[in-house]
Amino acid sequence: MPDGSVVSVATRDRWRARVEPFARGFGRLGLTPNALTVLGFGISGVAAITAGLQWWIAAGVISMGGAAFDMFDGALARATGTASVFGAFLDSTLDRWGEAVVYIGIVAGGFAAGDSLTVILAALAMSAAFMVSYARAKAESLGFKGEVGIAPRPERIVILGVGLILAGITRGPANGPWLQIALAAIAALSSITVVQRILHVRAQASQSEVSH
Amino acid sequence: MPDGSVVSVATRDRWRARVEPFARGFGRLGLTPNALTVLGFGISGVAAITAGLQWWIAAGVISMGGAAFDMFDGALARATGTASVFGAFLDSTLDRWGEAVVYIGIVAGGFAAGDSLTVILAALAMSAAFMVSYARAKAESLGFKGEVGIAPRPERIVILGVGLILAGITRGPANGPWLQIALAAIAALSSITVVQRILHVRAQASQSEVSH
Repeated sequence: MPDGSVVSVATRDRWRARVEPFARGFGRLGLTPNALTVLGFGISGVAAITAGLQWWIAAGVISMGGAAFDMFDGALARATGTASVFGAFLDSTLDRWGEAVVYIGIVAGGFAAGDSLTVILAALAMSAAFMVSYARAKAESLGFKGEVGIAPRPERIVILGVGLILAGITRGPANGPWLQIALAAIAALSSITVVQRILHVRAQASQSEVSH
Repeated sequence: MPDGSVVSVATRDRWRARVEPFARGFGRLGLTPNALTVLGFGISGVAAITAGLQWWIAAGVISMGGAAFDMFDGALARATGTASVFGAFLDSTLDRWGEAVVYIGIVAGGFAAGDSLTVILAALAMSAAFMVSYARAKAESLGFKGEVGIAPRPERIVILGVGLILAGITRGPANGPWLQIALAAIAALSSITVVQRILHVRAQASQSEVSH
């Protein structure tokens, strides 16, 4: 499920049609949608380990690959009519955890490189990215819409993946500036998104004031 | 709002009655419940800065004080009949952010101390604590209950506060083991709580299977 959407419904549907044959292929291998969800989480774990080892290019490629892989669980569920509310919950929850472990890997890799800025920025980016997802889930639990904002998950994944790959290619002193720029961008854009979501909820609340 | 409860309703009501006069006092100073919420977030920011400076005792005391302060916003809102859904949303969201910044401060302080274990454990504890809150909010957004589990926020705050204070008192090499033990405990107990919440949602979903 997109975490907020900058792509149109038509584009999304076109992508879904392309993904479906692959998803069905996994299904023929005997994998359930929830198994694919757990497998995607495992890919994020591998990305985290490579980041901890400062294999930045591998970490960037694998984390983006894992995010792309994440389209298959929903696609398989839709194609086989096995979509469930629990599946959606598990998918959202493990997506969050998978995103977080990559940042933890970067914290570890940054520490090993003696690079304080990367360590702090990775922790900041992780917390801000979490806040984006939390703000939406909390808003929806209270009956509001919370999907607005400039930095939903696909954007965060791409910024981080590109930053990791550039860090690996350029390999300047203390890993060059690219990873740090990407982390700072994620932290800033995500923080703005959280504020956007808070204001969006406030606007909805003021239209339908309920006391409790 | 408690994040899951180990205290009985009667205990909670007794505490609320004790807190109310203080909350009303803040109200007479001209502070609104939402202003108290933002002020509480500011206290967490101060705790984060002290943690970054490795003033562990101050960080422990201030972060626990900030969490206690957090009772006042809801109490004032109830006492003055100004409780609102937006207020509850803002409170939950800034509570999360306030908890996160303290961990970021610990990451910074651990890095300054050259203490890799503290850095990694703080990042792990932050992500696991976030997952606990996210899993509940996401569950509730899908119409499930998600409040179960052994490590809701009050427990996490106390474990971390005690760990910080003991780290400051003992000041062994690399800050002694206490902060690391507290962070590891939070990471482990929170991870267990996330799994408990996932299984709890699965149990509810299997009772009322809905396709979508």
